[in-house]
Amino acid sequence: MEYDFKNAPDRSHTDSVKWDVKPGELPMWIADMDFKTAPEIIKAMKEKVSLGAFGYEWPQADYFNAVADWYEIEHGYRPQTNWMIFTTGVVPAISSIVRRVSHIGDNVLVQEPVYNIFYNSILNNGRHVLSSNLVFDGEHYSIDWTDLEEKLADPLTTLMIFCNPHNPIGKVWTKAEVQKIAQLCQKHHVVLLLDEIHGDLVRKGQGYTPAFSIEAKSNVISLVSPSKTFNVAALHAAYEEGHDWLKKLKQQLNENFDYVSQFIQENVPEVKVVSGDATYLMWINVQKVTDNSADFAAFLRKETGLIISAGSVYRGNGQDFIRINLACPLAMVKDGMKRLVEGIRKYSK
Amino acid sequence: MEYDFKNAPDRSHTDSVKWDVKPGELPMWIADMDFKTAPEIIKAMKEKVSLGAFGYEWPQADYFNAVADWYEIEHGYRPQTNWMIFTTGVVPAISSIVRRVSHIGDNVLVQEPVYNIFYNSILNNGRHVLSSNLVFDGEHYSIDWTDLEEKLADPLTTLMIFCNPHNPIGKVWTKAEVQKIAQLCQKHHVVLLLDEIHGDLVRKGQGYTPAFSIEAKSNVISLVSPSKTFNVAALHAAYEEGHDWLKKLKQQLNENFDYVSQFIQENVPEVKVVSGDATYLMWINVQKVTDNSADFAAFLRKETGLIISAGSVYRGNGQDFIRINLACPLAMVKDGMKRLVEGIRKYSK
Ligand SMILES: Cc1ncc(COP(=O)(O)O)c(C=O)c1O
Ligand SMILES: Cc1ncc(COP(=O)(O)O)c(C=O)c1O
Repeated sequence: MEYDFKNAPDRSHTDSVKWDVKPGELPMWIADMDFKTAPEIIKAMKEKVSLGAFGYEWPQADYFNAVADWYEIEHGYRPQTNWMIFTTGVVPAISSIVRRVSHIGDNVLVQEPVYNIFYNSILNNGRHVLSSNLVFDGEHYSIDWTDLEEKLADPLTTLMIFCNPHNPIGKVWTKAEVQKIAQLCQKHHVVLLLDEIHGDLVRKGQGYTPAFSIEAKSNVISLVSPSKTFNVAALHAAYEEGHDWLKKLKQQLNENFDYVSQFIQENVPEVKVVSGDATYLMWINVQKVTDNSADFAAFLRKETGLIISAGSVYRGNGQDFIRINLACPLAMVKDGMKRLVEGIRKYSK
Repeated sequence: MEYDFKNAPDRSHTDSVKWDVKPGELPMWIADMDFKTAPEIIKAMKEKVSLGAFGYEWPQADYFNAVADWYEIEHGYRPQTNWMIFTTGVVPAISSIVRRVSHIGDNVLVQEPVYNIFYNSILNNGRHVLSSNLVFDGEHYSIDWTDLEEKLADPLTTLMIFCNPHNPIGKVWTKAEVQKIAQLCQKHHVVLLLDEIHGDLVRKGQGYTPAFSIEAKSNVISLVSPSKTFNVAALHAAYEEGHDWLKKLKQQLNENFDYVSQFIQENVPEVKVVSGDATYLMWINVQKVTDNSADFAAFLRKETGLIISAGSVYRGNGQDFIRINLACPLAMVKDGMKRLVEGIRKYSK
């Protein structure tokens, strides 16, 4: 099927968080795509709306089978349906799990920089954030295994939240890495919670490793969701017919990523793209422009109307980075790049 | 506009909780209507679905203004929009409030019999259920004010949950009663939480009194929702254009209630309708048939396929009662009544 990745739906007069902007501003921050969702989903929803019945629902066997089929086809491993529980979202699930498996005052281990809402789920429930920071060598991020194990061995560490693949750096962890983390967690009696919401959005290279596909999974909880893949954070449907759309979506995202990489290299070589093969979020090192990405992000918005995420919200070495959401038509990406260059020029003066 | 209150939408192959039944069974239990929702809502949703964008949303000023307008038009009192917070449902809100305003081991006061999920929100959070039972004189329910005040005065009582109007008995509390409870709560430093989800469904007589319309409301939290009114528990929309539909819905509900009252009087006079002017749920005294409504409900389902709620789940004197959901086409109500009579005859042998 032909899909439309050229036109963004006009959400300017809706309750969209992303498009709650001033005239002329361009939002490229929150992880929400500017493409219409798959027409297959729109069709199924229209049928549902026409039926006109929206009373209490609870997913049945066919729902869980659709999830199992999806993982078998997309990721080569079929999870058992009796491993699955339905929840209303990834973040609500994280908060519940934090309350369930750890105690007030415990450490919850993360790897900064990482998806900032993890900090809310931990801190708002009275737990401590303990970070084994990802190590940045100027080009790539990696895990400091010694530091990680030391922190897992702390008796107050009862839970680890692992972003697989990783937001904001876009890294796809290898199977060996996922396994090693799971084994270390098991050794130190730490529950391993994997946020795999970006798992379907591996644009190139090796696919991601769902945690439920590894051997040592007795203390593992894996959170998956169609909400990033199909941009249906406000809904809960859609694993059955989205394969083709997802394939074409990834092609479009790769075109956008290639465009931006080349554009940045040619126009602002002092800035460096770091992000990996997953997510539609680009992690960019702006160290040569600023050491205060929050200040730079605010400046960009004020001076050019471009809204991106300051890397500092993800902590770790995030103050040297920005995160740009590239899930939008190429024309919008190009507009964003013009504003970025303009912003950098002005900021550097 | 003409609305269709004759045909129930066919939900037999959906994930509906209500219609997850064996062939031939008739579900008249869970508070979920068997009417299509208002066509105005279906139309708005179709536009939304066609736009195809379901990313993150957050209600804006127009949303809260629509709620204020709704209460002004339907209930004669305009709440201020800065009193309002959006939540994802009444029950999630109750659970959060229990955790927020009381401590583990505190008493949360209710008035048995009452909506059974209150008990979950209290007990699952490690609080105690304390009940000032509603007093039943064989015809009507009323409040034992002395008992209520004694229990509010207990220093361990920090929260009261008040169902206004009341599920399952259908009673519409007077303004004086709502005020008196609020004053007693204030006097004894108890937060008063009112579940007003059935407030729009007052079929006759005086309307209900929204707690936010009374004077002594400084320690009052009122939960309102369009989900019962328009049967959109699975959605979150619809206060703008539903007035006409609601009016006609109430006419149909009254026709159903009248039919059942007369039918019961003529065919099973040993059974007595007790419910009041609110909700689409009928509370029926079956004391002369059984003193174990759970056993009777199970028997009814097995022998006739009619599924109703055993009053015992609401505690208090619920073991003598059943609750029947009458929000369905009259033909379905009639079918239900035939099965009820048949069930009572068989059970009494
Ligand atoms: C890593 C990660 N987890 C979770 C979420 C949000 O999940 P949900 O909307 O299902 O709560 C996001 C959204 O950006 C995310 O990037
Ligand atoms: C009194 C009462 N409160 C709350 C609910 C459920 O509310 P929600 O679906 O918004 O959680 C019901 C549903 O039957 C109810 O009768």
